[in-house]
Amino acid sequence: MEVRLEPAVVRGFRFAGVVSGLRKEPNRKDLGIIVADTAVPAAGVFTTNRVKAAPVIVSSERVRRGQLRAVAVNSGSANCFTGKAGIKLAENSAASLATALGCEPRLVAPCSTGVIGHLYDLEKYRAGIASAVAGLGAENFGEFARAIMTTDTRPKIASTRLRLGGAEVTIAGCAKGAGMIQPKMATMLAFIVTDAKVRTAQLKTIIKHILPTSFNAVTVDGDMSTNDTLLVLASGAAENRALVGRDLANFEKAVGGVAEALARELTRDGEGATKLVTIDVRGARNAADAEKIAREIANSPLVKTAFFGCDPNFGRIAMAVGKAGVPINADKLEVSLGGIKIASRGALNVDALTAAGEKMKEAEFGLIVDLKQGKGQARMMTCDLSFDYVKINAEYTT
Amino acid sequence: MEVRLEPAVVRGFRFAGVVSGLRKEPNRKDLGIIVADTAVPAAGVFTTNRVKAAPVIVSSERVRRGQLRAVAVNSGSANCFTGKAGIKLAENSAASLATALGCEPRLVAPCSTGVIGHLYDLEKYRAGIASAVAGLGAENFGEFARAIMTTDTRPKIASTRLRLGGAEVTIAGCAKGAGMIQPKMATMLAFIVTDAKVRTAQLKTIIKHILPTSFNAVTVDGDMSTNDTLLVLASGAAENRALVGRDLANFEKAVGGVAEALARELTRDGEGATKLVTIDVRGARNAADAEKIAREIANSPLVKTAFFGCDPNFGRIAMAVGKAGVPINADKLEVSLGGIKIASRGALNVDALTAAGEKMKEAEFGLIVDLKQGKGQARMMTCDLSFDYVKINAEYTT
Repeated sequence: MEVRLEPAVVRGFRFAGVVSGLRKEPNRKDLGIIVADTAVPAAGVFTTNRVKAAPVIVSSERVRRGQLRAVAVNSGSANCFTGKAGIKLAENSAASLATALGCEPRLVAPCSTGVIGHLYDLEKYRAGIASAVAGLGAENFGEFARAIMTTDTRPKIASTRLRLGGAEVTIAGCAKGAGMIQPKMATMLAFIVTDAKVRTAQLKTIIKHILPTSFNAVTVDGDMSTNDTLLVLASGAAENRALVGRDLANFEKAVGGVAEALARELTRDGEGATKLVTIDVRGARNAADAEKIAREIANSPLVKTAFFGCDPNFGRIAMAVGKAGVPINADKLEVSLGGIKIASRGALNVDALTAAGEKMKEAEFGLIVDLKQGKGQARMMTCDLSFDYVKINAEYTT
Repeated sequence: MEVRLEPAVVRGFRFAGVVSGLRKEPNRKDLGIIVADTAVPAAGVFTTNRVKAAPVIVSSERVRRGQLRAVAVNSGSANCFTGKAGIKLAENSAASLATALGCEPRLVAPCSTGVIGHLYDLEKYRAGIASAVAGLGAENFGEFARAIMTTDTRPKIASTRLRLGGAEVTIAGCAKGAGMIQPKMATMLAFIVTDAKVRTAQLKTIIKHILPTSFNAVTVDGDMSTNDTLLVLASGAAENRALVGRDLANFEKAVGGVAEALARELTRDGEGATKLVTIDVRGARNAADAEKIAREIANSPLVKTAFFGCDPNFGRIAMAVGKAGVPINADKLEVSLGGIKIASRGALNVDALTAAGEKMKEAEFGLIVDLKQGKGQARMMTCDLSFDYVKINAEYTT
């Protein structure tokens, strides 16, 4: 199975991305829709932040029923902390697409991303929906992915094809998000569509299985969005046999592959990021310990600025390992950066630091921490903390 | 009681700060000592990071006995992750001062701060101790405070005087630390000396009482040092009556005042900081909930970059409130920035944002979050996240 970072046609779905004028920047796409030919099995996960955006409240309720016909996503406003007016706005937004499609409103999931605390202009939104519906096309997945961007520098798209259940199946996904990212449940906004014939209950299980190694394994700034949403829709147009056994396992692997690729691209495009760093913690007493440590390293501003500075700063890594609250034996700690062992048996390999610093100049490298205590392991993907992160976030307006 | 940000003479103690050559920068003070006339009651708290520096291991053991004669502190190397050689180095370092003073080695507490993973030159250290002992003086508290600095831009000193137990008592403290600061147990390095006559057990209780509102209430980057140490020494030279009742309460309040002033100055001098922000969370169900939320806000890179940009970005504050994992009612949330209410009853006061942004240009302002759920409250002090934080930490060498 090969995952490509490009769009694909997925039978049973059409897409659009248009300029509706919700954003300040003129001519910037800000409204995207995904439309299935009919109501199809769907499942999703949403932010665990206690402050939930209105569209998250509306969509999570609708997805729970197991079927969707369409998804409508706007950027420019998160429609969060907008009270009852925000709920009404999310409902009216979805309704405008439902009316155009001639389907029940509850079959349309609204999603929003952008600044918090503001409503957007419903009339502009409605006009945008009309134009989006007019522009629907099977080839427009890339346009959709572009319309939902905020501080992203590029759309994040991944797709794959595989044979299963006697049919050729396609899976395509896209995601947006560059800041306020440490999802824990799902990333800011991610959408995966497939033409596989698969039941809602199977989709739910698959999401649960793939989250820990995809969207929940990345962090940009340790901040969890109020709008995190992952939706998976399956049209069934591939007409495959019911997915069981190895077919089901292969399908899950393929969806997981697309999700991992999207999560990786999200992190690579983290606000101000110049590097993608994969953090592997091994040899922990258990997986939970390993994850705690991986997360502390991945979120430490001191470690992340050292990544930016190509500084093989072992001390900060040891600090982050130690502050996770997990019992460790510092005398056994082994640490590799870019494949070069910089510490082992409780001592720094001073001679290795220059070479490790050179490796850190690459756009992508790995950090491996081996605790030598057991078999628990975990992986997190993170990016560096650069001047541009500060620039983007000190200047991004309320 | 007035706390002044200046040194004081504390009877029974002498101080020194000298250049010993442990640091790369020539002529930079890097070794400080505090010497009591005799062994005196002492108490301390240390980092809870699982990776503990050698001097933390040695000093915490020694302080547990309740008495110290002297403290020796070097900057330039944290002597952490240095294995058995590091322990030996810390012991030998302390021994050199003990020898010069003619006291038992266990009465000298060694402390270190600086880069992790490296040993320092014991011969240079010993020469430095000789020069420090020769330069001991009652007036040299400021020199000591300067010698223990790392990325600090200035020494942090606070002192106060009060009458209690029939005597005039002085309390003076200093602290260092600008990055890797979210102490939870104590700050990186802080020392408080007093001429009050007070028992070790009383000092221990006082430390426990004052920590939550002083060193444990500040954060620069959410990173916890491997070397955090707070030591309190009391010479008894004031010859006050035994401290009980109101005298004891007043003494605790005075020590707390000095500790709070030091914690505040630490935060104000946080790496790259341009602003000191006091975060008050009120109306929580209990104090623990309030602290969780205050800590999330104080550590959020998105909130801290908004502080830097003078951006009254309510959305990021709401996001941080929500991600603390505490049940809240977003429709009741009330938020003030610089005394200006920017949100109340679940809605943003858009008209107030410009004025709030103006207030944020000041070097110090407050953020108040009222959850309207109960009486729980907590305070955290934090600083902004600026270009200089990234600059300092991307360039600070291993």
